[in-house]
Amino acid sequence: MANPYLKQYLMTAGPTPLPPAVSQVMAEPILYHRSPAFIEVYARALGRLKLVFQTQNEVLGFASSGSGAMESAVANLTRPGEPALVASCGKFGERWAELCQAYGAELLHHEAGWGEKVDPADLDRLLGENPGVEVVFTTLAETSTGVVNDVRELTAAAHRHGALIAVDAISGLAAVPIPQDEWGVDVVVSGSQKALMSPPGLGFASPNEAALGRAATAPRRGYYFDWLKTVAGQRKDPPDSPFTPAVSAWMALNVALGMIEEEGLEQVFERHQLLGRAARAAVAALELDRFGPHDDGANVVTAIALPDTVDGSDVPKTMRDRYGVTIAGGQGQLKGKIARIAHCGYFGAFDIVTTISALEMTLRELGADVELGVGVGAAQRVFLDAGVPVAAPA
Amino acid sequence: MANPYLKQYLMTAGPTPLPPAVSQVMAEPILYHRSPAFIEVYARALGRLKLVFQTQNEVLGFASSGSGAMESAVANLTRPGEPALVASCGKFGERWAELCQAYGAELLHHEAGWGEKVDPADLDRLLGENPGVEVVFTTLAETSTGVVNDVRELTAAAHRHGALIAVDAISGLAAVPIPQDEWGVDVVVSGSQKALMSPPGLGFASPNEAALGRAATAPRRGYYFDWLKTVAGQRKDPPDSPFTPAVSAWMALNVALGMIEEEGLEQVFERHQLLGRAARAAVAALELDRFGPHDDGANVVTAIALPDTVDGSDVPKTMRDRYGVTIAGGQGQLKGKIARIAHCGYFGAFDIVTTISALEMTLRELGADVELGVGVGAAQRVFLDAGVPVAAPA
Repeated sequence: MANPYLKQYLMTAGPTPLPPAVSQVMAEPILYHRSPAFIEVYARALGRLKLVFQTQNEVLGFASSGSGAMESAVANLTRPGEPALVASCGKFGERWAELCQAYGAELLHHEAGWGEKVDPADLDRLLGENPGVEVVFTTLAETSTGVVNDVRELTAAAHRHGALIAVDAISGLAAVPIPQDEWGVDVVVSGSQKALMSPPGLGFASPNEAALGRAATAPRRGYYFDWLKTVAGQRKDPPDSPFTPAVSAWMALNVALGMIEEEGLEQVFERHQLLGRAARAAVAALELDRFGPHDDGANVVTAIALPDTVDGSDVPKTMRDRYGVTIAGGQGQLKGKIARIAHCGYFGAFDIVTTISALEMTLRELGADVELGVGVGAAQRVFLDAGVPVAAPA
Repeated sequence: MANPYLKQYLMTAGPTPLPPAVSQVMAEPILYHRSPAFIEVYARALGRLKLVFQTQNEVLGFASSGSGAMESAVANLTRPGEPALVASCGKFGERWAELCQAYGAELLHHEAGWGEKVDPADLDRLLGENPGVEVVFTTLAETSTGVVNDVRELTAAAHRHGALIAVDAISGLAAVPIPQDEWGVDVVVSGSQKALMSPPGLGFASPNEAALGRAATAPRRGYYFDWLKTVAGQRKDPPDSPFTPAVSAWMALNVALGMIEEEGLEQVFERHQLLGRAARAAVAALELDRFGPHDDGANVVTAIALPDTVDGSDVPKTMRDRYGVTIAGGQGQLKGKIARIAHCGYFGAFDIVTTISALEMTLRELGADVELGVGVGAAQRVFLDAGVPVAAPA
């Protein structure tokens, strides 16, 4: 029997698909981490990270997942027995709370609810009620629900009360804007495997002087994730890493950052906006419910509340096993209830077309009342209305 | 002018050169970490790690450098204010001491001296004098000096006093024997980028039940390096990782471990022994001094005490810049005093020939009295005396 579904499509919010040039550079012979050839890659990538973080701060790189970089923020900014405020709205926001507890901070946990945004007014009120809080942890794009928080306003609220703010932008960085220096965010945390179009294995944190100053007076910062160790190494000329860097991952990251630089960060944001708009138009045309707030800023992941008539866990499973299209379902309390279409990183128009197409076929197969092509058509219209660049990029 | 030195040779003890099949698998499209295709790779690699660690314990994998895996041992086994004994003989042993201090343990630091072995009798005596010590940290192969410690006897000494022992085998694992279960080592720590012939970015720790039991009663274990989180994930069927695993690095590791399995662990050890013997014969023939104890177990790195007549820092620099052969010089207090020839991982006879040849040419160029070919000839004799396998491996 003929199989037209032999190709595999990765449509998840991390690891995200890699551009071929990024994958291929990892097949090159490994470099000694103190060789001039690697130091050139490392210095270049560190410089390019500053452009993507939109900061003058040193962007610290760790061989770790994004959670390791989150731990670095908690290890360097919290103190045992002192209060720390976490403002969360999903699974990854809750990770901040777990981290603060693991480090013995006195946790104040504001849970906005899965699918809700964190309201800056709530943060303002809570900080007013708890004047001892010196550090706030929150999330830019909550991958578990698709919600994108208003980090500019959350930062302003924290600063009104003299608190520092650390933001998990693991899936959001380079997908939606978070101009660190312009907004005054004290620490932005990210990872390589989302919109940075690189393999998982590198975590980043970009503390400003205030955050580094707080770290310097911490009674204990751990060792591997101690910011002062890494900042001292990276500020050397040439830059050095206190521990063996993940050489291949840095080589890949440098190629990916070069592609972002070439496309232009503003164009990258616009592309994500367009992909998000097309995905939302498809969902609306299919008369499916979007999960979470119906705003136009959720351009990292589109979460769909699945119809009650289908078993939600069957949707990603069928899409993957029958059609070769891997999307993510719900996590934690949303397991079986939502499907998540990612558009963060190396995604283009026909990735949305493919994913919506497979979703339509899957829902039809699972017995839902879906007219084939309706969602795809709505996405196509969004793309056509946006116009086509005159010359395709080389 | 003709340049016969256009090829680059990586002869360092980490990152070590990768077999082409290991590099190439990293160029494959990235996999979703919860996809059946990745889970198969992950489960297979986890199983193969047990063979290399020679243990029934779960070998925990972290997206980190080897130092991150060392931190996991300190985070899970030490307690603030309680004593921890570090027995060191070089730069990486001292890292254990720094880690214990970063975690607030009461540090007892036995420094055997750079280039010396840790004497099991000293450990025995120290533990007798300090009956409160419940955990010992030491090193298998001290990469900074080439010394390989007698971990079997050090383990026996620790156990005689009821202490657990954690061993840094980052550069030693799969180069020299450390049969964990047979010797009863409580925790072996390693990294991907040494004799495991994989890119840097994965750290490992293999706690036995006693070590996991101690971790379970720890007041605090951190978060990212908390053994109980990772062991719970890996023991699931299928195994899962609490944080996004470094997918490409695991794909590479799985290929490399398959190659070790095919060669056979005993043959791998014998190959390292032979490479070490050849390197030592070359050094002796060149009438250079070996740095460190003159035993036959130092089969990871051969350290050479450079003649006073040359500036030691010039040796690795000249070898690299003029001949394309990258070796490491001395670190820390040995900077400029020694040269280190690595033979851990994907190294064969002609890597030794190439390295010794470049060393001879370099020393001659730097004005030392060296007869060209004498070191190479001695290495060749060792290899020929050992015989040639009848059929080359496929």
